[in-house]
Amino acid sequence: MNALFPFAAAGAGHDSDAVPTVLLALAFAIVCAKLAGELVERLGQPAVLGELIVGILAGNAALLGGPDLSALASSETLTVMAELGAVLLLFHVGLESTPKEMMAVGGRAGLVAVVGVVTPMLLGFGVGELMRPQEPWMLHAFLGAMLAATSVGITARVLKDADTLRAPFARIILGAAVIDDVLGLLVLAVVSGIITAAATGTVLSAASVVSIVAKAVVFLIGALLVGSLISPRLFRGALALRGRGVVLALSLGFCFVLSYLALRAGLAPIVGAFAAGLVLEDVHFEGHVQRGEPPLHESLEPLTALLVPVFFIRMGMLVDVRSFASASVLGFAAVLTLAAIFGKLACGAVAPKGVSGLTLGLGMMPRGEVGLIFAGIGAQLVLADRPVVDAGTYAAAVFMVVATTMLTPPLLLWSIRRK
Amino acid sequence: MNALFPFAAAGAGHDSDAVPTVLLALAFAIVCAKLAGELVERLGQPAVLGELIVGILAGNAALLGGPDLSALASSETLTVMAELGAVLLLFHVGLESTPKEMMAVGGRAGLVAVVGVVTPMLLGFGVGELMRPQEPWMLHAFLGAMLAATSVGITARVLKDADTLRAPFARIILGAAVIDDVLGLLVLAVVSGIITAAATGTVLSAASVVSIVAKAVVFLIGALLVGSLISPRLFRGALALRGRGVVLALSLGFCFVLSYLALRAGLAPIVGAFAAGLVLEDVHFEGHVQRGEPPLHESLEPLTALLVPVFFIRMGMLVDVRSFASASVLGFAAVLTLAAIFGKLACGAVAPKGVSGLTLGLGMMPRGEVGLIFAGIGAQLVLADRPVVDAGTYAAAVFMVVATTMLTPPLLLWSIRRK
Repeated sequence: MNALFPFAAAGAGHDSDAVPTVLLALAFAIVCAKLAGELVERLGQPAVLGELIVGILAGNAALLGGPDLSALASSETLTVMAELGAVLLLFHVGLESTPKEMMAVGGRAGLVAVVGVVTPMLLGFGVGELMRPQEPWMLHAFLGAMLAATSVGITARVLKDADTLRAPFARIILGAAVIDDVLGLLVLAVVSGIITAAATGTVLSAASVVSIVAKAVVFLIGALLVGSLISPRLFRGALALRGRGVVLALSLGFCFVLSYLALRAGLAPIVGAFAAGLVLEDVHFEGHVQRGEPPLHESLEPLTALLVPVFFIRMGMLVDVRSFASASVLGFAAVLTLAAIFGKLACGAVAPKGVSGLTLGLGMMPRGEVGLIFAGIGAQLVLADRPVVDAGTYAAAVFMVVATTMLTPPLLLWSIRRK
Repeated sequence: MNALFPFAAAGAGHDSDAVPTVLLALAFAIVCAKLAGELVERLGQPAVLGELIVGILAGNAALLGGPDLSALASSETLTVMAELGAVLLLFHVGLESTPKEMMAVGGRAGLVAVVGVVTPMLLGFGVGELMRPQEPWMLHAFLGAMLAATSVGITARVLKDADTLRAPFARIILGAAVIDDVLGLLVLAVVSGIITAAATGTVLSAASVVSIVAKAVVFLIGALLVGSLISPRLFRGALALRGRGVVLALSLGFCFVLSYLALRAGLAPIVGAFAAGLVLEDVHFEGHVQRGEPPLHESLEPLTALLVPVFFIRMGMLVDVRSFASASVLGFAAVLTLAAIFGKLACGAVAPKGVSGLTLGLGMMPRGEVGLIFAGIGAQLVLADRPVVDAGTYAAAVFMVVATTMLTPPLLLWSIRRK
């Protein structure tokens, strides 16, 4: 009988063993996200906190005598679906603003972003000089780079859960967080480049630095300018299509293409998705909605309902709580986390009149997956025969990410409601 | 500069190289599906035909001097997403009927299904005896088994495109096609078992056959009975949840769990999804809809809009048109295809009064991906030192699948509208 099973399974599995795993994982994710979200919302916390906790529990279930699910978080399909979730979330968030509204806060958001990158970098560098004086300065620079990039997903979710996406302070935070994401990726590329060059005994050329920055700038300006020109024409032309679902199909296509181009420009796909959301405006598909098409934000809801929890639960699953078991790691982690927190709270100093500096700083605080990715890249970089990020530093970085990510939702929500 | 790119890309790519590929592939799929669907609908054909043609063109673009995209069709993530598309489509289709309505046509659908499995199997066996007399009878039985299973996805899409899912003839076709899918998988398991046993010099035990069949029957009866009991209680209890999107989350969870269990019972996930759709009824979530939740079929639409085209375009991409280049293959393919077509048209003989036998037979005709999977399994089975399905037979099976799949949408739509 067992000899038969493989065929039956192969026939039913339609080519891929990943199908049963993904079916169960999606069922688990969407149902648990809803239940945990409901529970934490009754406690006055944003739903995203519930999803992160579900993820941490699932990822560390083996420690509690449960099954070992940690391999799930590295499954190709679930990784891609999580990324699509982040892309759709930032697309949805971008839709709430127009390029014009964003420009209006752009100067201030840029200032906040620069403070939010420079202060944590200096503090991270200082922590390295202070606590790891025997290491070369480039490693301390990497430590600083790890603290630079805000994870806009968490903040966007809290603002969305609290229904304040259109408030001026929300626009400044979101704009600054996205610029931070861009700056963070540029800093990472440059610092990694310096270390890689040093490892081979050379120095990173100025031309390389310029090229990294130029690609990102060309993408951003191009996406906003060309996108704003194309989008109204595209949807007006699409009125010729009579079938249902035209708005959703074209909008998703636009969002996915810009996400892809962002990736090709060395940026994160969510940056492209946010730009796509900014460019598209309800007025572009008014004609379609009058014909009976559902408005875009309504048709996006089921897609984000399925995929966004995959992103946040997976983010929780990536946390291995065992890495916090050593006292010396915890000490270094605590100092690094304080640097991360105060580095971003410093953004509050440049808050405009009428906007709470604390809310602004808290909104910039979460590091999320981006910080984990930076740490992972550092673990693979080698300088003078040792990894740039060793096991202890990696665990400290994970702690910093977990602490800033888990503290942000309750603190930010509290700060928003305080007024 | 190139030395830097890997880091920037790794940072932006968030762990997986599959992200850029999937972003582009999804953008392509959703936009092209819409455009091609519109085009063929203007020609009076169902939209699914357009998606299949887009897939065939994309999969064979290299022959036309374009890029070689054939690897895309075997990408893990896109394979799983295609399968999720099929699962959501059959779930959506199942929602249009209740178990009671299905029971009302159940006897007739069962009869149609049995004719639709037995006749093609006999004809396929006959084609083997006639055209490949030197081969053992077991290979001819496998040839027959390849012709057995209807691909319910194509027919469901045509019925949905033509807005006739609730007509009595549609219920009979869908019921029979799903039973066919179950019977086809059972036949495949048994025939594969016989061949595997013969290859090791033994005989398949009756107990093994009984166990295969028992698992499938237990799943189906269990899913419908237990599901019908649980579903109303589940949604009534869920009224305690105050958040939005409860109906969608619970319904998708239910659908994915039943799809998973179907797979575990040796059936296709789509069988579980169809059962889940049958069991869920609008009346179960009336309370939620009154509170302002969108009805389930509305929230499913964006999900199917994104994922269903992935399924049909991928199905088209799996066709390698070069395999039809030999005259002897084409001859065998033509005879096999005629056996496949007339084997299913025979179902028309048991059509009840008031239902067109031709429409019924045409609805049962498409073989789709299921046939390709059967052929693929046969290519891996070895008997007397040669594969059960050799290259020529495989190409003929592909031709049979392509012909029945591509002919069904226009012919079925014509037959439905004829009245």
